[in-house]
Amino acid sequence: MSWTTDSASDQTPEAVVARVSWNRDGLLPAIIQDDTDGAVLMLGYMDDEALRRTLTEGRVTFWSRSRQEYWRKGDTSGHRQYVKTAALDCDGDTLLVRVEQLGPACHTGARACFDVDPLEPVVGSSADDAEFPDDTTADA
Amino acid sequence: MSWTTDSASDQTPEAVVARVSWNRDGLLPAIIQDDTDGAVLMLGYMDDEALRRTLTEGRVTFWSRSRQEYWRKGDTSGHRQYVKTAALDCDGDTLLVRVEQLGPACHTGARACFDVDPLEPVVGSSADDAEFPDDTTADA
Repeated sequence: MSWTTDSASDQTPEAVVARVSWNRDGLLPAIIQDDTDGAVLMLGYMDDEALRRTLTEGRVTFWSRSRQEYWRKGDTSGHRQYVKTAALDCDGDTLLVRVEQLGPACHTGARACFDVDPLEPVVGSSADDAEFPDDTTADA
Repeated sequence: MSWTTDSASDQTPEAVVARVSWNRDGLLPAIIQDDTDGAVLMLGYMDDEALRRTLTEGRVTFWSRSRQEYWRKGDTSGHRQYVKTAALDCDGDTLLVRVEQLGPACHTGARACFDVDPLEPVVGSSADDAEFPDDTTADA
C-alpha cells in the first residue's frame, strides 16, 4: 500500500482501495445519489472487492452485512445502479457514488430509502442565529 | 423502547432515538446534504445524544470519533449547519439531514468533503446494458 501525499492523484482501483480508511469491520460506507436530480437514494457498505467491482464494472456492488455476500444492486430486483461518478471524502472513509437508478432504489418500493421515515426536527436558520449562540450547551 | 409497527409515526426525539438501529459502536451515520441544491456535503456520526440535539436545536451535532466528544458543526469554524429536514432510512440505520450550510462544509476549505478526491470509475449506462448481463460474476 502507498500512503504518499500524492496518492490522491492515483486513480487505479488498487491505489483507491489502498487509500481508503476502512472501518473496523473492513467496510466503507457508500452514499448513493441520483445523478439526474441529486436525490440521496440510500447508503450501503463496500469491502475492498465490492469497491473494485464498483469502480470497474459500471454498476454498484455492495457487501451485504446481513447476508454476508456481494450484492450487485439490481441483479435480483432489476433496479440497477449504473455508476456515473465516484469520490472519496477528505479523510477517505466515505464514498459518494452518483448513479443512473433504474426503478426504485429502496426494497420497500419507495424511490429512496430516506422517503420511508421522515422526521420532524426543529428547523434552524442563520436568520434566527441569535437563538443558537455558540456557548449554548444545554440539552433543554 | 417501543418497536411496534407504527413506531415510525412517533416523532418525539425519544421515539426516534428508540427506533434507530445503532451500529456496534453505538453510532448512526448521518449524511449531510445542502438543502439549496442537493449537494452531498459530508458524512458524520451521531450517538443518541447528538441525535437528540440535532433534532431539537436546529443545528447539527455530531459525535467526533477521533476526539471522542460532541461536535456542533460550526462552533469553532463558524461553518454552521442549520437543520431543514431529517429522515431515517428504511431500516433505521442511516440519517439524512438537509441543511443550510454556512461557508464550506469541509475542514479542508472545500465546499464539500467529496470535492477533495474525485475518482475515475468506469461509467455505466442502461443504454449499454448488454455489457452487464445479470449472470456476469467475473471480477475482470
